[in-house]
Amino acid sequence: MASNGIELKDYIRSIPDWPKEAVLFRDITPLLGDAKAFAAAIERLAADFADAGVDYVAAVEARGFIFGSAVAEKLGAGFVPIRKAGKLPFKTETVSYDLEYGTDTLEVHRDAVRNGAKVLMVDDLLATGGTMAAACELIKKIGGRVAGIAFLVELRELAGRDKLAGYKIATLISY
Amino acid sequence: MASNGIELKDYIRSIPDWPKEAVLFRDITPLLGDAKAFAAAIERLAADFADAGVDYVAAVEARGFIFGSAVAEKLGAGFVPIRKAGKLPFKTETVSYDLEYGTDTLEVHRDAVRNGAKVLMVDDLLATGGTMAAACELIKKIGGRVAGIAFLVELRELAGRDKLAGYKIATLISY
Repeated sequence: MASNGIELKDYIRSIPDWPKEAVLFRDITPLLGDAKAFAAAIERLAADFADAGVDYVAAVEARGFIFGSAVAEKLGAGFVPIRKAGKLPFKTETVSYDLEYGTDTLEVHRDAVRNGAKVLMVDDLLATGGTMAAACELIKKIGGRVAGIAFLVELRELAGRDKLAGYKIATLISY
Repeated sequence: MASNGIELKDYIRSIPDWPKEAVLFRDITPLLGDAKAFAAAIERLAADFADAGVDYVAAVEARGFIFGSAVAEKLGAGFVPIRKAGKLPFKTETVSYDLEYGTDTLEVHRDAVRNGAKVLMVDDLLATGGTMAAACELIKKIGGRVAGIAFLVELRELAGRDKLAGYKIATLISY
């Protein structure tokens, strides 16, 4: 984790009581803003799947786009945006998933990946895993195969991996 | 525009009557999904500012993140996310701007750039220019200098450049 002399965890800022009381938020913006730390994070996220024959990288808006697109470019893959309901203009496939209160919906274009293509899923944060499990389901609905999942940060106490059993998961920073 | 044999415009899909009647929407997702076209777009967006000494790339969520982060990585710069109100956890600077109906607000962390740093602004689409003008104002409020603005697509009939007078602007695809 300290290759190139960069310890990525040093660039994460912890913010107490955000977005609500008693939550300790892990703020990734100092890492994004440091050119060397950002480049190292992209390089390491891509490196774990460099030999996986990745055709596409998929990510959920908005923060997922930051790492997903740069990892796609690094791997020579296409990029597939997964969005909240109503934002994609072409024919979409949809999946709904439970939140703490209520449900949320994700969409992807039906023609976003070739049938049988290998798709690497990327996001900044693995918390409960609910959003990522839904995103993986969506990619499979449109004919893709999930080649793996890469996260910048994992919050282990939320046990998000339990919702993602069977997938190869790589994370760079753990709390 | 056709270097590397790729004509980027061929990867833009035009969708009539979206998001509302009589609007012809330019859908960039086919370009994103094609690994070679996506890589060429990132390379060309970065190339126009390769000698500008860019310290940071800033972009507005959500689609702006797709090109902004990959261009930042390509230029060896840091990345600065500009977000809608209430999404950034640390101390923020804010700017409001007019929409067709009502107003919208953008935020950035006050410590996102070093004082006097050169910031390249990146977005997928130049339409009326209102969002980008607000984003530039925000970067200047926190002490950055706008080194230029790069767009994938420009809709010339909306005259967005008029709102961005004085900035160096580069666009890859025009309608």
